Amino acid sequence: MTKFKGLAMLGFDTIGWIEKEAPAVGPNDALCRPLALSPCTSDVHTVWEHAIGDRHDLILGHEASAEVVIVGALVKDFKPGDRVIVPAITPDWQAVESQMGFSQHSGGMLNGWKFSNVKDGVFGEYFHVNEADGNLAHLPDSIGAETAVMLSDMVPTGFHGANNAEVEYGDTVVVIGIGPVGLMAVAGSVLRGAGRVFGVGSRKKCQEAAKYYGATDIVNYKDGDIVEQIKDAMGGKAVDKAIIAGGDNDTFDQAVRLVRPGGIVSNINYLGTGDFIKIPRVEWGLGMGHIRVTGGLMPGGRKNMEYLARLIVNGRLDVSPLLTHRFGRFDDIEEALLLMKDKPADLIKPVVTF
Amino acid sequence: MTKFKGLAMLGFDTIGWIEKEAPAVGPNDALCRPLALSPCTSDVHTVWEHAIGDRHDLILGHEASAEVVIVGALVKDFKPGDRVIVPAITPDWQAVESQMGFSQHSGGMLNGWKFSNVKDGVFGEYFHVNEADGNLAHLPDSIGAETAVMLSDMVPTGFHGANNAEVEYGDTVVVIGIGPVGLMAVAGSVLRGAGRVFGVGSRKKCQEAAKYYGATDIVNYKDGDIVEQIKDAMGGKAVDKAIIAGGDNDTFDQAVRLVRPGGIVSNINYLGTGDFIKIPRVEWGLGMGHIRVTGGLMPGGRKNMEYLARLIVNGRLDVSPLLTHRFGRFDDIEEALLLMKDKPADLIKPVVTF
Amino acid sequence: MTKFKGLAMLGFDTIGWIEKEAPAVGPNDALCRPLALSPCTSDVHTVWEHAIGDRHDLILGHEASAEVVIVGALVKDFKPGDRVIVPAITPDWQAVESQMGFSQHSGGMLNGWKFSNVKDGVFGEYFHVNEADGNLAHLPDSIGAETAVMLSDMVPTGFHGANNAEVEYGDTVVVIGIGPVGLMAVAGSVLRGAGRVFGVGSRKKCQEAAKYYGATDIVNYKDGDIVEQIKDAMGGKAVDKAIIAGGDNDTFDQAVRLVRPGGIVSNINYLGTGDFIKIPRVEWGLGMGHIRVTGGLMPGGRKNMEYLARLIVNGRLDVSPLLTHRFGRFDDIEEALLLMKDKPADLIKPVVTF
Amino acid sequence: MTKFKGLAMLGFDTIGWIEKEAPAVGPNDALCRPLALSPCTSDVHTVWEHAIGDRHDLILGHEASAEVVIVGALVKDFKPGDRVIVPAITPDWQAVESQMGFSQHSGGMLNGWKFSNVKDGVFGEYFHVNEADGNLAHLPDSIGAETAVMLSDMVPTGFHGANNAEVEYGDTVVVIGIGPVGLMAVAGSVLRGAGRVFGVGSRKKCQEAAKYYGATDIVNYKDGDIVEQIKDAMGGKAVDKAIIAGGDNDTFDQAVRLVRPGGIVSNINYLGTGDFIKIPRVEWGLGMGHIRVTGGLMPGGRKNMEYLARLIVNGRLDVSPLLTHRFGRFDDIEEALLLMKDKPADLIKPVVTF
Repeated sequence: MTKFKGLAMLGFDTIGWIEKEAPAVGPNDALCRPLALSPCTSDVHTVWEHAIGDRHDLILGHEASAEVVIVGALVKDFKPGDRVIVPAITPDWQAVESQMGFSQHSGGMLNGWKFSNVKDGVFGEYFHVNEADGNLAHLPDSIGAETAVMLSDMVPTGFHGANNAEVEYGDTVVVIGIGPVGLMAVAGSVLRGAGRVFGVGSRKKCQEAAKYYGATDIVNYKDGDIVEQIKDAMGGKAVDKAIIAGGDNDTFDQAVRLVRPGGIVSNINYLGTGDFIKIPRVEWGLGMGHIRVTGGLMPGGRKNMEYLARLIVNGRLDVSPLLTHRFGRFDDIEEALLLMKDKPADLIKPVVTF
Repeated sequence: MTKFKGLAMLGFDTIGWIEKEAPAVGPNDALCRPLALSPCTSDVHTVWEHAIGDRHDLILGHEASAEVVIVGALVKDFKPGDRVIVPAITPDWQAVESQMGFSQHSGGMLNGWKFSNVKDGVFGEYFHVNEADGNLAHLPDSIGAETAVMLSDMVPTGFHGANNAEVEYGDTVVVIGIGPVGLMAVAGSVLRGAGRVFGVGSRKKCQEAAKYYGATDIVNYKDGDIVEQIKDAMGGKAVDKAIIAGGDNDTFDQAVRLVRPGGIVSNINYLGTGDFIKIPRVEWGLGMGHIRVTGGLMPGGRKNMEYLARLIVNGRLDVSPLLTHRFGRFDDIEEALLLMKDKPADLIKPVVTF
Repeated sequence: MTKFKGLAMLGFDTIGWIEKEAPAVGPNDALCRPLALSPCTSDVHTVWEHAIGDRHDLILGHEASAEVVIVGALVKDFKPGDRVIVPAITPDWQAVESQMGFSQHSGGMLNGWKFSNVKDGVFGEYFHVNEADGNLAHLPDSIGAETAVMLSDMVPTGFHGANNAEVEYGDTVVVIGIGPVGLMAVAGSVLRGAGRVFGVGSRKKCQEAAKYYGATDIVNYKDGDIVEQIKDAMGGKAVDKAIIAGGDNDTFDQAVRLVRPGGIVSNINYLGTGDFIKIPRVEWGLGMGHIRVTGGLMPGGRKNMEYLARLIVNGRLDVSPLLTHRFGRFDDIEEALLLMKDKPADLIKPVVTF
Repeated sequence: MTKFKGLAMLGFDTIGWIEKEAPAVGPNDALCRPLALSPCTSDVHTVWEHAIGDRHDLILGHEASAEVVIVGALVKDFKPGDRVIVPAITPDWQAVESQMGFSQHSGGMLNGWKFSNVKDGVFGEYFHVNEADGNLAHLPDSIGAETAVMLSDMVPTGFHGANNAEVEYGDTVVVIGIGPVGLMAVAGSVLRGAGRVFGVGSRKKCQEAAKYYGATDIVNYKDGDIVEQIKDAMGGKAVDKAIIAGGDNDTFDQAVRLVRPGGIVSNINYLGTGDFIKIPRVEWGLGMGHIRVTGGLMPGGRKNMEYLARLIVNGRLDVSPLLTHRFGRFDDIEEALLLMKDKPADLIKPVVTF
């Protein structure tokens, strides 16, 4: 292989198929061939909302399961032919930030995010993986390629939201936004022991999935202010934790108004516009209410993939309700991406297996 | 009421019904009438294994749901007639140890344990609760008195084991001992996101319940060394966490041999005999393997009861598989206790509702 | 004693001496007589900035060391004549929030703050302490009454800022605001192992004290934008933690701009005005930078007082550089309070001993 | 350079100078030339106590500061001529264990320890460093080569003991063993806010240094049982934390007897002999006392070195009292090692600078 094709961002608002030279595979790295792919709302942000600035001829995509094709001389644990889980975030593991436990920010804020950001993504016939031993995970036989794609981003991002919210036994949790990431935040909250879980969203398909994943209450923002609706349902009491998986800067205002002293607001939503996150002074306890506000990019890397995969292998988590639209050929990734852009009412995630 | 009867330890190896004067109810305290009761293996330890030393005419029992009969002048949140959950551990909340987060040890090691230890227990027509606002919890309408008894000790103890093991998404957990407390440690591990869970026990009834609560593998110590059995099942790999809910001092040797560097051994088993816990030097990394060994009495108090109750209210936990033997009259607590002593093969927990 | 006098807020903008009936001392409580007093900027906020709303004839003050005069029948660890440290925050220890580790918010947001908020403060000939066993601490012989006053609020608030910032060995910490609380945040950061510490403030007296407590760099906001000054001094690198002990809602914007991914912004400043705390979206990593923003009222109670006192007893902390103005008679508390209001250039804290 | 000489373990009980081929420098690696060296008690264990099994012609030593001579093609942050701090532990950063926060055990229990264990150590004219970007740290200009050697092992090991003990403001800490590592545990405890600190040791030189580093009480085991001595000094009260930096398996018995419920026993001592660590059942709260027993190898890597170096740069820590014996030529490392073996009364650490 010297050249291969991929679906790229050609520039703002334009996608198309291009040909690329096969990338060099360094001694720590691997070249992979995708087995299944899924487009992400982030891809839509990147192309049509200009979220990370202009990019030219950059292959899109960061959700894939794959087969290893080539490995560098120093790669010990993977060999050509291995089926692998590929995390959306592939940190530099020697970086000081990784040693601190923030590998997402290896080398700088958000710099662990490489696919379709600072290098070609996974929507190509082949794609490059840095530090393969640290960033790939063997795909267990019992997990299909299609299922594995959900481990790239949806599961780890949603579950990271629940982890950062430090959900504990019996906690009441509000998940604002129940697209695929929010749904995984619901599932992740329940798998950390949440009691009552509010899912905030308007689409029927997502509401049903939220219930499947353990939401006890569904709140539709089209029915009125969500703070009021939730406070009413709670008899005026505050909730323990809020996970933000949708909305915008103002959503933090709602979240803080909902959470008890000592509670946590955990954001996993990419905030694309606006200048300032809004934290309401009074409800934030005049600065002294111990309401922690945090937000974080999912942790990538091998360990996280291996451990999350065990939830699927052992029957704790079923991602199939996320997969509402299936495609069968590599080229279908274009249609799948456009579907993600249009977001029809019955869509949660499209997946392409081939 | 000036006198009431209760089932007491008369002295080592003897139980019997006695009459007691109604206790004084201080300004922070409450007097309660049990609605349901359950005997605990600890009651058996106390009477027939002399675990906490001699006691004379001490009413036994620390697992009850109840109705409030009298409250002290300073009690704000409870009134006569309220149905309540009663934790086995009722700390002194002002104590320095409670302020440190170790209310179990308020006033000294294990001193948060008062019922059937330093004062009369709950196997009486009435029983006294210190610091009612801090130690009782309102029983939600949707939880029956019978179910509520499992919140006194079985659920919080088992779940405390999982909490101290800091079980995380995908962790492989070994629970050694799958009596009622171990079963709740299995359930608690799964509700903290465990992947694979080994349940170690020999009784068929308990094995079935362990599977119900999410154990993926059952190991019977009668089939050979459990370390070997588990290592074999794991392909030689170590597990992440071990929870000890049975066995003795030597069980720690097995647990440490099973756990990875950085893993945790979490004990919730009352260790009744022997001089020293055994930690194997080599497998403990010559003292440098970061295998944390810890053990703790369940946290009592209102907050813990309220939050664990939410797991039942919201359908996350069903304790009914624990309740293998049911009785219908107050006096049956004697038979129930003797059943706990004899431990027939089909017993998990007896419960008396009246 | 049936009546006693105290310095009170008569209404907005007015203070004066009033007479009060001696308060009832409940069974868990104590009545104390102050040995030393200090006014706090919060008292100034309360009276002249209307921070907590109107109050009539409310005795001011929450910083005192004292002698116990009367104890309730259930108080075990204190007796009349005992010399005590009195925390500004005196929680209800049975409250669910206290059991969660947030005793400051026992019974509701900030409700652990009672003195000069919901009941008479310490600027009286006598004052009432709720839950004496949980809220007083014995004053060690080696600590004078004057020194002990700094343990009521200044030390625990500043050190709480460093605790919430989770300062670790070698961390670079920025402390914004170096009045007495900020100075204790500097000292607290150094006593948690901070490496480089920036103190931000303009007054020479405070700058000198900041250096005494271990600040390595002093930044004066009058010399230009503090973010630029600190970034310059850091060669463009981010700091690990920022503690906010002064400024307003916009100070969070500066703090977030200074802190690295994975860093913490810890507020201990009372935010008296404005609608929203400002968190800059881009520098906050588009919501994914793992920059935790939190803020909290100091923890009160006995344990915290006892442990902080040990820092003084063992020579780890010297609060005398805080005490710039000394008075000798009880009545001088009025002049001391007005001094705190006027804040002359050479003032850090006034203290009245008698 | 094709060959170089080094001081090696020739076999059990024998050391000598040998010649070695220059090692291959992989793309991620570096070759360094030592600037200063120090022998460690571990070197003595290795050669004369057979602690890690037999080794033939293995160059000894893991404490060095150095100059970079050659770097691999992928090394970004270091170049020949750079002066560097070299940690004793040099993990594989891609390993799953490193991603879990236990880089010391990358690839298996204790496998982050490579120098003088699984490859030649630093007592050569040259030595090899794996993953240079992740394992070296730039030596700040203000730190001399001699001082920097203490950052390889003594400072990080001692401070790791204090970190694992989770020392908090005002904690009373016992440090058992006040050789160089124990002294750094004393310093590390004080720099995490310890109040009273007991240093247990018999040598006058070490006792003086312990006081210098902040020990408030010195206990000599030659004067009687240390548990009794410390309990007496504490008026019968328990301490909060114990750090074990000397002794053997039985020392844990003493430590557990000293520590309060909820306290921590943190080991940093290499346990060379015996079968089982002794944890006394009764004092360990019958398994329910929440006394955590843990022990860990120091974390290596660049981040840790950089942050600990900041303590020296900013004047928080002075290691010079450790350096009791100085040598001036490379060849003197042999004499320094023999000195470490003989351990004269006035020795803390020898250092060789050249």
